Amino acid sequence: MTTDASSGPPRLVRTIAELRALLGAHRRQGHRIGFVPTMGYLHAGHVALMTEARARTDVVVVSIFVNPTQFAPNEDLAVYPRDLPRDLAACAGAEVAYVFHPDVAEMYPSPGATVVQVPSLSRGLCGRSRPSHFAGVCTVVSKLFNIVQPDVAVFGQKDYQQLAVIRQMVRDLDFPVEIVGEPTMREADGLAMSSRNGNLTPETRQQALVLSRGLFAARDRFLAGERDQAALCAVIEDTLRSAPLVVIDYIEVVDADSLEAMPEQLADRAVIAIACKVGPTRLIDNILLDAAQAPGATP
Amino acid sequence: MTTDASSGPPRLVRTIAELRALLGAHRRQGHRIGFVPTMGYLHAGHVALMTEARARTDVVVVSIFVNPTQFAPNEDLAVYPRDLPRDLAACAGAEVAYVFHPDVAEMYPSPGATVVQVPSLSRGLCGRSRPSHFAGVCTVVSKLFNIVQPDVAVFGQKDYQQLAVIRQMVRDLDFPVEIVGEPTMREADGLAMSSRNGNLTPETRQQALVLSRGLFAARDRFLAGERDQAALCAVIEDTLRSAPLVVIDYIEVVDADSLEAMPEQLADRAVIAIACKVGPTRLIDNILLDAAQAPGATP
Repeated sequence: MTTDASSGPPRLVRTIAELRALLGAHRRQGHRIGFVPTMGYLHAGHVALMTEARARTDVVVVSIFVNPTQFAPNEDLAVYPRDLPRDLAACAGAEVAYVFHPDVAEMYPSPGATVVQVPSLSRGLCGRSRPSHFAGVCTVVSKLFNIVQPDVAVFGQKDYQQLAVIRQMVRDLDFPVEIVGEPTMREADGLAMSSRNGNLTPETRQQALVLSRGLFAARDRFLAGERDQAALCAVIEDTLRSAPLVVIDYIEVVDADSLEAMPEQLADRAVIAIACKVGPTRLIDNILLDAAQAPGATP
Repeated sequence: MTTDASSGPPRLVRTIAELRALLGAHRRQGHRIGFVPTMGYLHAGHVALMTEARARTDVVVVSIFVNPTQFAPNEDLAVYPRDLPRDLAACAGAEVAYVFHPDVAEMYPSPGATVVQVPSLSRGLCGRSRPSHFAGVCTVVSKLFNIVQPDVAVFGQKDYQQLAVIRQMVRDLDFPVEIVGEPTMREADGLAMSSRNGNLTPETRQQALVLSRGLFAARDRFLAGERDQAALCAVIEDTLRSAPLVVIDYIEVVDADSLEAMPEQLADRAVIAIACKVGPTRLIDNILLDAAQAPGATP
């Protein structure tokens, strides 16, 4: 279905009240609403999420909000990259109808007293070094879902833990929203696309390649039959340690759905997730280990 | 506006999917939806909530669900009073369109991992002796709001802390729901209506009268000019102690909105909230102190 809302540049909306009024009119016309929540500085990975949302719905809303409550005081809120004009152009190219770009006072007129969290999925992986991060994510996504009331929301698998947490939250709280996860987009040289790549220097950009290189190497070993968790992690660790500006936060092998730790000898499916500081910039990446993808695997 | 849905007895709905389908059809017709969440064993206080919801909306949904996650293991989940046929009759008399009565497996198909809470408002008063209670309330009300997607939800002021917590949660999470609080309904002798009154014996029913009697006495002293918190609490405590089967949990004077503690010398507005065990049954009650209600007060 084509609607007027998705031709031409997106409309920039800064208040909850205006967005609700605009979307209410669409809803009354029977339009389905797609939603892509972002923190801006959009790249081709975000565009793929928007394209997927547009394919599934009539009206796509992209939020651009660098949410302060998911950053700890020692983290990179102040230097998180921002470029609204470029973001609006990216949204225009993806037939986005509305860009919701509230300021902090619009989203948090007073300090919020309410917290939404999924403790069991938020303790490991990034949650270990960012203990309040996923509560901030769940709370702001709950707010955005209640503001946009989308039929479909699309998230990237690059933030693998975030997607798992959101899926669990939506299931547990009965949000009437279909959650779609999209594969990680990578640069030609393998680097996972991330807004934070905008903070890399030529030197750290080059060293950051060890993340994807290590994951690909481990996946290849897995597909060749290696099932020993320690051996797979050692492949990654060796690769990461070859780059002097890279400091490892974690390398973890977890269940693809529950994010729980896996036995030392893996079965046929798992995820390896990693996080590193590359100079001052924290980057994450992950890869699915799936024996069904091995050459000659029975489909 | 009169709709078919509100004539005749309410339709009993036991699954989320069926309720969503029914309410989706109303929404497409432009009907506004009112919601009264309850744990059943309905009394005239509940009926007043339904009547208020009906006056404000086209289609009223009452949920009857004794939510296990808001009871601690030592509490009265097993003996909470239940009477579905009588409840359905009460709903029919109040033009309720749908009674949503899911079983526990429908609401919690797996143990929920997600928690919604308002810690700052949940620590005092009932939260002190029921530390996990309001997280259970906020989580199930979030679920119910996402299932029913009401325009208006009506709660009783008898559960004063619950109403304050829900208001804060709705504000913080941007739920698109108008929250309406309705005054406490009382029996002719002053006892606040409560489903738990169904568990009183003639003897404990008689002794339970000290709750409202103490609150009324304190309110009268306040309206006569008494502003000393300790003096007002002493009036209540003396009254409660006159009943040998009554064990005081708390008597607290708090800000009517923030639920924060008040200075020893009160200003012109506060709430006194109390909780007691009367035999094995835990009862709560509260009263608004408002100098504007004093005889001769400037309106």
